[in-house]
Amino acid sequence: SSSTTPIKATLFPGDGIGPEIAESVKQVFTAADVAIDWDEHYVSTEVDPRTNSFLTRESLQSVLDNKVGLKGPMATPIGKGHRSLNLTLRKELNLYANVRPCYSLPGYKTRYDDVDLITIRENTEGEYSGLEHQVSLFFSSLVKNLADYLSFDFVKVVKGVVESIKIITRKASMRVAEYAFLYAKTHGRKKVSAIHKANIMRKTDGLFLQCCDEVAEKYPEIEYEKVVIDNCCMMLVKNPTLFDVLVMPNLYGDIISDLCAGLVGGLGLTPSCNIGEDGIALAEAVHGSAPDIAGKNLANPTALLLSGVMMLRHLKLNKQAEQIHSAIINTIAEGKYRTADLGGTSTTTEFTKAICDHL
Amino acid sequence: SSSTTPIKATLFPGDGIGPEIAESVKQVFTAADVAIDWDEHYVSTEVDPRTNSFLTRESLQSVLDNKVGLKGPMATPIGKGHRSLNLTLRKELNLYANVRPCYSLPGYKTRYDDVDLITIRENTEGEYSGLEHQVSLFFSSLVKNLADYLSFDFVKVVKGVVESIKIITRKASMRVAEYAFLYAKTHGRKKVSAIHKANIMRKTDGLFLQCCDEVAEKYPEIEYEKVVIDNCCMMLVKNPTLFDVLVMPNLYGDIISDLCAGLVGGLGLTPSCNIGEDGIALAEAVHGSAPDIAGKNLANPTALLLSGVMMLRHLKLNKQAEQIHSAIINTIAEGKYRTADLGGTSTTTEFTKAICDHL
Ligand SMILES: CC(C)[C@H](C(=O)O)[C@@H](O)C(=O)O
Ligand SMILES: CC(C)[C@H](C(=O)O)[C@@H](O)C(=O)O
Repeated sequence: SSSTTPIKATLFPGDGIGPEIAESVKQVFTAADVAIDWDEHYVSTEVDPRTNSFLTRESLQSVLDNKVGLKGPMATPIGKGHRSLNLTLRKELNLYANVRPCYSLPGYKTRYDDVDLITIRENTEGEYSGLEHQVSLFFSSLVKNLADYLSFDFVKVVKGVVESIKIITRKASMRVAEYAFLYAKTHGRKKVSAIHKANIMRKTDGLFLQCCDEVAEKYPEIEYEKVVIDNCCMMLVKNPTLFDVLVMPNLYGDIISDLCAGLVGGLGLTPSCNIGEDGIALAEAVHGSAPDIAGKNLANPTALLLSGVMMLRHLKLNKQAEQIHSAIINTIAEGKYRTADLGGTSTTTEFTKAICDHL
Repeated sequence: SSSTTPIKATLFPGDGIGPEIAESVKQVFTAADVAIDWDEHYVSTEVDPRTNSFLTRESLQSVLDNKVGLKGPMATPIGKGHRSLNLTLRKELNLYANVRPCYSLPGYKTRYDDVDLITIRENTEGEYSGLEHQVSLFFSSLVKNLADYLSFDFVKVVKGVVESIKIITRKASMRVAEYAFLYAKTHGRKKVSAIHKANIMRKTDGLFLQCCDEVAEKYPEIEYEKVVIDNCCMMLVKNPTLFDVLVMPNLYGDIISDLCAGLVGGLGLTPSCNIGEDGIALAEAVHGSAPDIAGKNLANPTALLLSGVMMLRHLKLNKQAEQIHSAIINTIAEGKYRTADLGGTSTTTEFTKAICDHL
């Protein structure tokens, strides 16, 4: 067994199936002799009875202190008062880039072979600004604030007209573009595609592209192209091998990463990792919390396990990362132990044990 | 030969390959004895030397008068001064619903069989509002207009921050939802899925969904569901037969319709039709103008031909519509005459002649 000092890492098991799949990660990591000291925090869509809060300052601080963590699914109720906890974490921790690899799993057949894509999603702004309003007579977003400030009262709300504001900043676009090209270079990737709709959103997506252009100039060895999002989706389903690393604003990243996940079997099989300033990394399974099967020992822990592997790579524990990765892949490829979502009959614990046996 | 009075219809051949594929439609319609009197208008990204205009009032009026038309591709240069002509037509003619069917073509194999999807896209607002700004100190969209109006001068532009405004109105959402459910009912469809991201854009997509909910209540015989756009894309690539009719805001329609086209072979094979008030219909091939192959007799006219078929169905010329449809499908299925994009070696004229020979 390993004699290294354990590395402290934050763990947010999350809602629904979260605790079960987090348990699976702990067991697999233990079996692989990975010395992680899990700093576990209860962050959930349900208020924590102990703290009377959804998310405490301590939970955020834990990630900032440990600089590394793993996160299970958290439910995002439609139309509830508070914002999605997933987003709150990204925003509060300034996790500016969301890396979502999608690759064909050997032994798990879909319509597509040889998919090997990296979506890098801007993670803090864009369509996710949270700025939305009833439109006022001056057809403006926050004109009401100004009117309040000036004590005017002639601002009238137009009935049946609402607006959402997409914010693109040079700062956030530059850092995600920088991250994408650096990622491509350090991971031996050949091409970066910037995905956009600048023929329509000329200013916002235009600024995003301009930043990508600037960064691309510093990486002459990396091929660079700009692809309109609708065309990108069409090409991805026709021939995903045309792409390599894809970088894009927030909502496009949300859409494209799910599409790519679909090519290889779905979000139950694809990992992700959120990157922040100062070397912070919060790996995350981005599938839902699956309340219908929660607590039934039926969940597939693969996405969280592979996210854990991304966390280990981030910690430069490459040997253990590859061991665990192979054990997961081989277990799925053998096909004897698979969870129901992959057409098998194994429980979460049986599947987990099979992976541990491969180690 | 036919003895009916010809029906007047507007024709915009468009840019690039537009004139060639429009010629193909004329020939096929003639071969099928469809009595259309084409009212042809030059509308292009290049200024018309005769009128010194991109788009004249007469061209718009032609559609309003004839109430029916067919449109080829028009280029949308990124970052040029004027707006996309495609959008200008949709906006000026108030073409509020864009119907984009995608179905597997018998005899043209892709990874997917039995695709049969109808995307109905809101076509006039949303992310296509054209409202974009440098963000001002009050972090608002049009606060500058107010400041100008009040002769204030304290509004300062923030550097490196831009915004795009998505506008959703009850009016436009209701009419596209109404159209989608009526379409489902009159075309024997079973289900309507409203596609959204209301967990993030709660007000805008929330209003859109609320309108769909209201309309759905009037169609108890049609199944109704709401699907988040990212999940929709994942499900579409995993199993497109889960869906039937899909209705959604503008940008999502742009993205999803291209994705769906990709499932069956691409935009070269899929038709569309824009629906306006007072029974106006402008059928449209939504692929690009392909300047690289323009004038070379290499273009595939299928998308424009199938759009022409949609136009004929709109005119209730169902017999001729089905004849032409079969001739196109059979020509492709036989495989002897196919254009280069489908792996064949036929010219546009050879492919067109093959279709005519089937009639
Ligand atoms: C749950 C939801 C708010 C989230 C998002 O939209 O980012 C999810 O879809 C994701 O991709 O992580
Ligand atoms: C050319 C472009 C402006 C247009 C759009 O975005 O709507 C096209 O992609 C389409 O789908 O018709």
